[in-house]
Amino acid sequence: MIAANATILPLAGFTPQHFALSVSGKVATVTLNRPEKKNPLTFASYRELTDFFLAAQKEEEVKAIVVTGAGGNFSSGGDVFEIIGPLVAMETKDLLKFTRMTGELVKAMRACPQPIIAAIDGICAGAGAIVAMASDLRLGTAGSKIAFLFNRVGLAGCDMGACAMLPRIIGQGRAAELLYTGRVLKGEEAERWGFLNRLCASEAVLPEAQALAAELADGPTFANAMTKRMLEMEWAMSVESAIEAEAVAQALCMQTEDFSRAYHAFAAKQKPVFEGN
Amino acid sequence: MIAANATILPLAGFTPQHFALSVSGKVATVTLNRPEKKNPLTFASYRELTDFFLAAQKEEEVKAIVVTGAGGNFSSGGDVFEIIGPLVAMETKDLLKFTRMTGELVKAMRACPQPIIAAIDGICAGAGAIVAMASDLRLGTAGSKIAFLFNRVGLAGCDMGACAMLPRIIGQGRAAELLYTGRVLKGEEAERWGFLNRLCASEAVLPEAQALAAELADGPTFANAMTKRMLEMEWAMSVESAIEAEAVAQALCMQTEDFSRAYHAFAAKQKPVFEGN
Amino acid sequence: MIAANATILPLAGFTPQHFALSVSGKVATVTLNRPEKKNPLTFASYRELTDFFLAAQKEEEVKAIVVTGAGGNFSSGGDVFEIIGPLVAMETKDLLKFTRMTGELVKAMRACPQPIIAAIDGICAGAGAIVAMASDLRLGTAGSKIAFLFNRVGLAGCDMGACAMLPRIIGQGRAAELLYTGRVLKGEEAERWGFLNRLCASEAVLPEAQALAAELADGPTFANAMTKRMLEMEWAMSVESAIEAEAVAQALCMQTEDFSRAYHAFAAKQKPVFEGN
Repeated sequence: MIAANATILPLAGFTPQHFALSVSGKVATVTLNRPEKKNPLTFASYRELTDFFLAAQKEEEVKAIVVTGAGGNFSSGGDVFEIIGPLVAMETKDLLKFTRMTGELVKAMRACPQPIIAAIDGICAGAGAIVAMASDLRLGTAGSKIAFLFNRVGLAGCDMGACAMLPRIIGQGRAAELLYTGRVLKGEEAERWGFLNRLCASEAVLPEAQALAAELADGPTFANAMTKRMLEMEWAMSVESAIEAEAVAQALCMQTEDFSRAYHAFAAKQKPVFEGN
Repeated sequence: MIAANATILPLAGFTPQHFALSVSGKVATVTLNRPEKKNPLTFASYRELTDFFLAAQKEEEVKAIVVTGAGGNFSSGGDVFEIIGPLVAMETKDLLKFTRMTGELVKAMRACPQPIIAAIDGICAGAGAIVAMASDLRLGTAGSKIAFLFNRVGLAGCDMGACAMLPRIIGQGRAAELLYTGRVLKGEEAERWGFLNRLCASEAVLPEAQALAAELADGPTFANAMTKRMLEMEWAMSVESAIEAEAVAQALCMQTEDFSRAYHAFAAKQKPVFEGN
Repeated sequence: MIAANATILPLAGFTPQHFALSVSGKVATVTLNRPEKKNPLTFASYRELTDFFLAAQKEEEVKAIVVTGAGGNFSSGGDVFEIIGPLVAMETKDLLKFTRMTGELVKAMRACPQPIIAAIDGICAGAGAIVAMASDLRLGTAGSKIAFLFNRVGLAGCDMGACAMLPRIIGQGRAAELLYTGRVLKGEEAERWGFLNRLCASEAVLPEAQALAAELADGPTFANAMTKRMLEMEWAMSVESAIEAEAVAQALCMQTEDFSRAYHAFAAKQKPVFEGN
C-alpha cells in the first residue's frame, strides 16, 4: 500500500527517445534536439512530449520546467516530410486523431502544476510557436523568429488552441495578423507585444530561464500551481465567479505551511524557505 | 436547379448608392464617400453596408475586403443631423430597432468569411471607429484620429459591441479610458496599443491595405475563413473547449486541396498556388 | 414615504475611521492614510472600504471616485502583523470568511456605477495593487512600484480576482510573470503595458486624477455607468450576445435627457451640460 503522501517520482524512470531531458535540483529542462533540422516535431516526439507533461503532472520533485531547443533554434515545428506528407494522404478519422493528439500536448502543458518557461532563440515556428505559446512564461532573444505559419502550408491559424490563447497574450488585432499572414515576429517586437517576457543575449537565454525556473521552484509551489490553474480556469468566467473561486482557492493556500513559514520568516527578519506544502 | 458547387456571385449585382464599391481581382474595396462631411454614416448607409457584408458572406469570388474613406478621412460616424436628430425624437421601439440595426452591421462583418482590412487616415470616429474595430486588421497613419466618442453625445461606450471587442484588442484599462472619455487616440499611440497593425504614409495606406488583402486572398482562403470563425467563437470558450474545437476545424482543413498543394509545392521547391478549396 | 426619485445621499453620513474621505463637487476622494506604515490594509479598513463602495452604489450626488494614498505611497497591502499574523492562526471557516470579505471589496468597487480612478505613487503592493487593478482607470508616476507580491508571502496569485482581471488589462504572459514572481512593476513599464493609463509627476498625480474624475462626473453619468456595467458583464460573453446586450443598453441611453441635451447643444454650437439623467 502506498501512503497518500508518498513522494511520487514518475519522471525518475522517464528516458525520452525524441528529446533530451535533464533535471537539476527542482528544475527539469526539455531540449528539442535535432539541431540539424532546427528541432522539428514528429509524430513520435509529439507523443513523447505529451507523455512527459502527463507524467510531470504527478511528479513531486520537479517544481518548474524549462523548454528549449538545441543549436540556436527553438523548433521549426511539424516536419514537412515526416508529418505533413503523411497527413496529406490520411483519411478523416486519422486526421482528427492527429489534431487531437497535438491538442493533447497543449492540454498536458496547461494541466501541469509546474510553471513552464520557454527559452527561445532562432526559429520558433508552427507547432514550435504553439509550444512556446502554451508555456507560462517566454524568454527570448533579439534573434528569435516566431511564426504561426499554418496558413503558409494551407492550414488555418486555429491550431492547438492558438485562436484562444494568442489573443489573450498579445491582443486580438495582433494575433489575427500573425495567424492570417504567418509572418515572422522578431524578438524585439515580440517583447513589445508581450509575447516574450524578456529579451536575453543568445548565450544567456537558457541560463536565465533556468535561473527564473529555479526561483519559482524555490517559491511556494503549492500556491504557484494554484495560480496556474486559476489563470487557466478564469479565461471564460465572469468577474463575480472568478472572485468567489479565488476566495476558496486562497483560503486553501492560507492553510499551507508555506504561508506560515513566510510569516515567521518575516517576523524574524529572515528569508522564508518554502517547501511547497 | 443550381448545382451545390455553382459559383455564387451575389456581389456582381450589388450597386451601392451610399458608398463606392470596386473589385480588383479577389479584393473588394468599400469606400465611404461623402468626403465633404468626412464620410458620415446615415440610416441608409448603415443598412446598405450591412446588406453588402451579408451578400459578401455568400460571395465566392471576393476573398478579402478593404474598407476605407474618401478624401483623407475614414469616417466621422453617425451624422448629427441625419441620425442623432431623428433618434432624439424616436420612441423606444424604434430606438431598439436602430441600435439592433447598427449591431447587425458588426455581426455581418464578423460573420463574413473574408478578412476585412480597414485602411484608416484622418478622422475615424464614433460608428466609424466601430467599423474599424470590427475589421480584422487595421492599417493607419500618423494622422489617424480614432475616437469612440459616444459619451461626448450623451451616450454609453457600449455601442455595437465596443465593450466586448475593444478590451480584447487593446486591453481593459485602455479601452475603459477611450470609452469613458471619448478622447482621440492618435496613430502612433494606436499602433503602440495594438489597435493599428501598422502605420503607413497617408498616400500608402490604401495601397498597402489592398496589397495585404491581395496577399491574404491568394492564401488558403478556406482555412483563413476558419481562422476568422474560430477567433470569433473562442472569446468565450474555455481553453479545453477551444483546443477540441480547433482539432476538429483543423482536421477539416487538412482535407482541402490547398493543404495538399502546399505540401507538393514545398517538395518541388515551388511557391504554392492556393485556390481556397 | 420617499419618492422614487428622491435624491439619495448615503455618503453624507459616512464618516470613515480607517481612511480619509473628502468630497469636492461630484468627486469623492478616498485616501488611505497611515503613511508611517505606507498605508496598509487591515481587517477594519477592508470592511470599511467595502462599506464605502457599497454605500456609493446608492449615492446620487457623487459621480466619480478617486482612490489614493497619503505620504507618497499608494498602499503596502495587507499588514503583516495586523492581517497575516492572525490569518496564520485562523481556522478554515474564518479563512474563507476573510478571503470572501476581501473579494467583496473588489465586487463593491466593480458594482459602483461611478468610475473609480486610482492615483498611484510609490508602493502599490499586494492588496494595494488589487485595489488599483479593480479601479477603472489608473494614473501613476515614474516612481510607482506595483507588486502583486502574494507568492512572496507563500500565497497564490489568485487573490481577489487577479487571475481574471490582470490578464485582461496587461495580457496573459505579463500577468503570469507578475503573479508568479511577485516582482515590482515600475511606472514606465506599467504605462507601456497598459496597467497605468498615464504617467504624471508625483505632485500632479492626485490633481490630475481628480481633474479627470471631475471631467467624467460632468459627462453623461447615466451612460457612463452603463459603460462600466457592460465592460464588466461582457468579459465572459460571446460577441453576438454582447452586441445584443449593447443594443438594448444603448437604446435605453438614447432615452435620457443627456442625449437630447448633447444634440441640442451641438445644433446650437454650444457645449452640452449633462445632468446624468
